[in-house]
Amino acid sequence: MTRTRSDVAVDTTGESAVDRAIEAFREGQPVLVHDAADREGETDIIYPAGAVDADDVVRLRSDAGGLICTAVSHPVAETLELPFLEDEFDHPAAADHDLGYDDRSSFSLPVNHRETFTGITDDDRALTIRELSSAAEQAAEPDSDYDASEFAAEFRTPGHVHILRGAPGLLDDRRGHTELGLALAEAADRPPAVVVCEMLDAESGGARTPTAALEYARQNDLVYVEGADIIERLADGIDHV
Amino acid sequence: MTRTRSDVAVDTTGESAVDRAIEAFREGQPVLVHDAADREGETDIIYPAGAVDADDVVRLRSDAGGLICTAVSHPVAETLELPFLEDEFDHPAAADHDLGYDDRSSFSLPVNHRETFTGITDDDRALTIRELSSAAEQAAEPDSDYDASEFAAEFRTPGHVHILRGAPGLLDDRRGHTELGLALAEAADRPPAVVVCEMLDAESGGARTPTAALEYARQNDLVYVEGADIIERLADGIDHV
Repeated sequence: MTRTRSDVAVDTTGESAVDRAIEAFREGQPVLVHDAADREGETDIIYPAGAVDADDVVRLRSDAGGLICTAVSHPVAETLELPFLEDEFDHPAAADHDLGYDDRSSFSLPVNHRETFTGITDDDRALTIRELSSAAEQAAEPDSDYDASEFAAEFRTPGHVHILRGAPGLLDDRRGHTELGLALAEAADRPPAVVVCEMLDAESGGARTPTAALEYARQNDLVYVEGADIIERLADGIDHV
Repeated sequence: MTRTRSDVAVDTTGESAVDRAIEAFREGQPVLVHDAADREGETDIIYPAGAVDADDVVRLRSDAGGLICTAVSHPVAETLELPFLEDEFDHPAAADHDLGYDDRSSFSLPVNHRETFTGITDDDRALTIRELSSAAEQAAEPDSDYDASEFAAEFRTPGHVHILRGAPGLLDDRRGHTELGLALAEAADRPPAVVVCEMLDAESGGARTPTAALEYARQNDLVYVEGADIIERLADGIDHV
């Protein structure tokens, strides 16, 4: 019996799914990652940021529907002096961050690349995202001189692409889509910048169910992987650069 | 000859289009507003915020595709101590805000209502948006005691709905979708809170053209109106509460 690529893509559990997710990232393809039923319970489409073009932004806004964010690693955020948003706000609404699913959000600055116009079009967001990948790659190099002022020469804030900060110890510290995506990028030897966007469900008004996300993966020949399998495989024993 | 509602809806210029936009807002319907070819050159879908339910959020993310924001009037932002984002950031990327189309962006805090879970689902964003309308309505009342701490009891930041601040003199000061929408809300005797979302074009990677936006208005029986006509009608002679 011949297995088609779609047959393979729906083998979603265990190490083989993680292997295929890493391989997809190496090829610049997106993967679908479900975090955990007892956390957000959401599936995000996640791309290595350097691979995103305008058509990918269309996929994210049309097929996922959530907020289009770019996560960078903790060391990159430190080098570029990208703060947690909640630390920037004096407003009393920032004081008591009672999330149901984690201790804190990952939001950092929302930015536009300076060569964008409004910043929101598919071309503009794709440019901002790709240049964020390039900035993260440069900032992550040992003895890099790409710092906050280099970053400020290329990007302005506020803008339309939301930077997220990965936790310092990555999956050992926090197990959100931010960290799951960055762990995949690291394993795939990609720069520490990934685009994440939540898959929503218009029928229910809630998150896309894992079953529906899996069906989308099957239809679009994409890899679907469970956060638990990424954690099992990548939470220990890799060097969190 | 009988005129259908669609025939009426595509009569897009002059006072009658503005009248129909105001009437649509009174009925809780969205309108399409093109700002100006020499500004952003974008058409936004704009709703009175109090009328938005989960299906409307689906329309915004599926058919418009931009960032889903809620604009509130200057007096409401002052009462609720909602800052301009760029004033909150120390990062050098906030220092030189070289927009091609205006002096400053309107971004204020991104928020979630505290009764949301992740904040990003259609149900969650609709709840946040409707409650923002209610908060704006309360804050706008003379001698209101609805202040920043009342607001903080209901909303947390960071979140997934981006608040925008209207300019102090509304259309006399700035002519973005923020001010155009708030002027329509004021004329329709709606609370000073409107949802705006840019209509994008997947084919070109840019903004939806006025022609394509008009076609969408026709197909969906919605009012399309030019910013210039709103300005002509509403920029002078109304009381900017």
